[in-house]
Amino acid sequence: MIWLATFVVAPSPEQLRLPLGMLVIFGSAKLLDEIFERLRLPGIVGQILAGILIGPSVLGWIHPTPFLSRLAELGVMFLLFRVGMEIKSSDLIKAGPQASAVAVSGVIIPFFAGWGLLWIWGESRIESIFVGAALVATSVGITAQVLSAKDLLHERASKIILGAAVIDDILGLLVLAIVSGLAKGSVNLLELGLTAAFAIGFTLVVVKWGTAAMGRVLPRLNQQLRAGEAQFNAAVVLMFALSVLSVYAGVAAIIGAFFAGMMLSESVEHRVHDLTQGVTEFLVPFFLAGIGLHFNVGTFRSGRTLVLTLLIVVVAVLSKFTGCGLASLRLGRRTALRVGVGMIPRGEVGMVVAQIGLSLGVIAQGIYDAVVFMSIATTLIAPPLLSLTYREIAERKPVPVEDQPSII
Amino acid sequence: MIWLATFVVAPSPEQLRLPLGMLVIFGSAKLLDEIFERLRLPGIVGQILAGILIGPSVLGWIHPTPFLSRLAELGVMFLLFRVGMEIKSSDLIKAGPQASAVAVSGVIIPFFAGWGLLWIWGESRIESIFVGAALVATSVGITAQVLSAKDLLHERASKIILGAAVIDDILGLLVLAIVSGLAKGSVNLLELGLTAAFAIGFTLVVVKWGTAAMGRVLPRLNQQLRAGEAQFNAAVVLMFALSVLSVYAGVAAIIGAFFAGMMLSESVEHRVHDLTQGVTEFLVPFFLAGIGLHFNVGTFRSGRTLVLTLLIVVVAVLSKFTGCGLASLRLGRRTALRVGVGMIPRGEVGMVVAQIGLSLGVIAQGIYDAVVFMSIATTLIAPPLLSLTYREIAERKPVPVEDQPSII
Repeated sequence: MIWLATFVVAPSPEQLRLPLGMLVIFGSAKLLDEIFERLRLPGIVGQILAGILIGPSVLGWIHPTPFLSRLAELGVMFLLFRVGMEIKSSDLIKAGPQASAVAVSGVIIPFFAGWGLLWIWGESRIESIFVGAALVATSVGITAQVLSAKDLLHERASKIILGAAVIDDILGLLVLAIVSGLAKGSVNLLELGLTAAFAIGFTLVVVKWGTAAMGRVLPRLNQQLRAGEAQFNAAVVLMFALSVLSVYAGVAAIIGAFFAGMMLSESVEHRVHDLTQGVTEFLVPFFLAGIGLHFNVGTFRSGRTLVLTLLIVVVAVLSKFTGCGLASLRLGRRTALRVGVGMIPRGEVGMVVAQIGLSLGVIAQGIYDAVVFMSIATTLIAPPLLSLTYREIAERKPVPVEDQPSII
Repeated sequence: MIWLATFVVAPSPEQLRLPLGMLVIFGSAKLLDEIFERLRLPGIVGQILAGILIGPSVLGWIHPTPFLSRLAELGVMFLLFRVGMEIKSSDLIKAGPQASAVAVSGVIIPFFAGWGLLWIWGESRIESIFVGAALVATSVGITAQVLSAKDLLHERASKIILGAAVIDDILGLLVLAIVSGLAKGSVNLLELGLTAAFAIGFTLVVVKWGTAAMGRVLPRLNQQLRAGEAQFNAAVVLMFALSVLSVYAGVAAIIGAFFAGMMLSESVEHRVHDLTQGVTEFLVPFFLAGIGLHFNVGTFRSGRTLVLTLLIVVVAVLSKFTGCGLASLRLGRRTALRVGVGMIPRGEVGMVVAQIGLSLGVIAQGIYDAVVFMSIATTLIAPPLLSLTYREIAERKPVPVEDQPSII
């Protein structure tokens, strides 16, 4: 953009930085979104590719910064908050047993598959275990965005995916705790048990009683508050409060935001949906393009790393797909396909695991790059596959009869 | 908040930082907003006080960070964008001559009053000139927020204030350029003239033809775009694009955002208003509390500085009030009162001037603190005074006949 700076008067770079950065990121994400939608491809993939394009590896206009990653984090929070507002907690409870099976199977198989692959490849034990851990956690943000953009959140498979993603998140944090403990030399089993009990207890309490509590509080609040847009502001405060509580309870902040949305799903005004939609619509491109910004062309410099990277991607896709698909097979082939595909994206969660491994000094830069590439690749693969498996509904044909009778 | 960290499991501070910070800032701002509204005081003052309260000088929970100041900057941008959407450019053009008189008089009187005060106080010539410059620029954000929250944007005085604030911004940037030039030893008159011509030309073109251009482009865009919420996204892109162009043209980014809103005011869908309102409602507390965060209790450590600070506040209030009020006196005493009061807040603009002076090494820390205090104080004083001068309308009594017949 340097040519612009010669434009009559040179403006102060400090003043330009924010609006120009916003314009480039938001504008390119929305442009590729539009182009992809016209080509009948998922717009979400376009937005991630926009990040790759403007990022350090291609054009080099935008580099990841703490400001952008926080904006991205707020984006996923609002995204899951909005998705939560469309989900009844009773539906999530009904999907619970099935979602638990999907989550457990979808954690165990990728973990051992990733570990096994790196072990066969000849990497150290701890490095292998870390890659296994990085394959565990599903990025619910990507799937939620696809399902919500296509208005598919109310399908049975969608609810299983969301429920499984919540449980998967808890399991992923436990796996990360074990693995980090191993890397540091000791795993405190009592602490681990307490963490697990606390996270599960928190989730059960919020899911079981949260909606009812809000159903009682919200109407009163509504009568009492005087400031403008009070219900929206109270909802945002609840979202941040639940996010904070979740982190204390050992669950990710975005899961807390999802819970907050769900607690409000049955009692909140339509106005709150609209205002939340505005914030989400504004922030989500920074989340999506932000994933693309982490793409590192350096991953492909050595042939050996390239092969390993591609193997990790294949293992990541297949292990999650079979793990989650098999666990939901008795709900019918179509549902199993959807659930299997919906759990594939690792997004920002895989990157976080890799970052911890790198900062603990137990994984090499090459492995880190491979895991980051895997996170982006699985995130790019899932949306088109999801669109395919949901095609009948998205095209508004009558919903086909499932192969098996409904269980949940 | 340390007591919370002992809560069963200690979470990673990195994960907590964002949601906890957001909860504290957004929550406290909205809480004080609510309390102030109940006490029949302006909620905006409550939100700024929330920033003072949680900031370094009182509780010390939150410190100003680059992330927070960028979030605040985005907040004012969206605020002025939303305000712009309620203003027709034809109204602004009609208010033009009157607004110009207000702006010019409201720049000259505060500049010389500030300069004179510091000169009498015995400060150096350049320091005196810098304080004069810091008294020049009005923070339109604060007044716009008060007027928009009370639905008063369509009053005659409100349009004069907005128009004057746009012109004031251009004049303020010119004054800053002159003063910075003086501090560095040379003022390039040709460059200054070009800057002025370019800024004024840009403003005239955008205000005169922007709305008509959008009126033609928007309906076509609407038919063609396929991605979700396309019109909102196009509007946000326009906002950032105009902000960038404004900075290149020598006008502040937020004025560009205001222009973008105004260009859309006659053709945009209601949905875009709602979604923009969501983003604004979420971000504005960070702008308001962010002003409070800069409050520095150190200003009051020396008695001499304290006296000077209070004198600067008094001069800032009176000079802007008389400068702008006198220039609009022929529109009636009530309109003049409103315009005079509406132009008082200096907000973030005064702070920017002080920061430049500090970074150039031409003003002392004590003077810097005094100017920052003045910026916060004028921002706190204006909203209640504005509410008073607009009281008849806000209380929904019939609008009283003005002392003089309408000119615009």
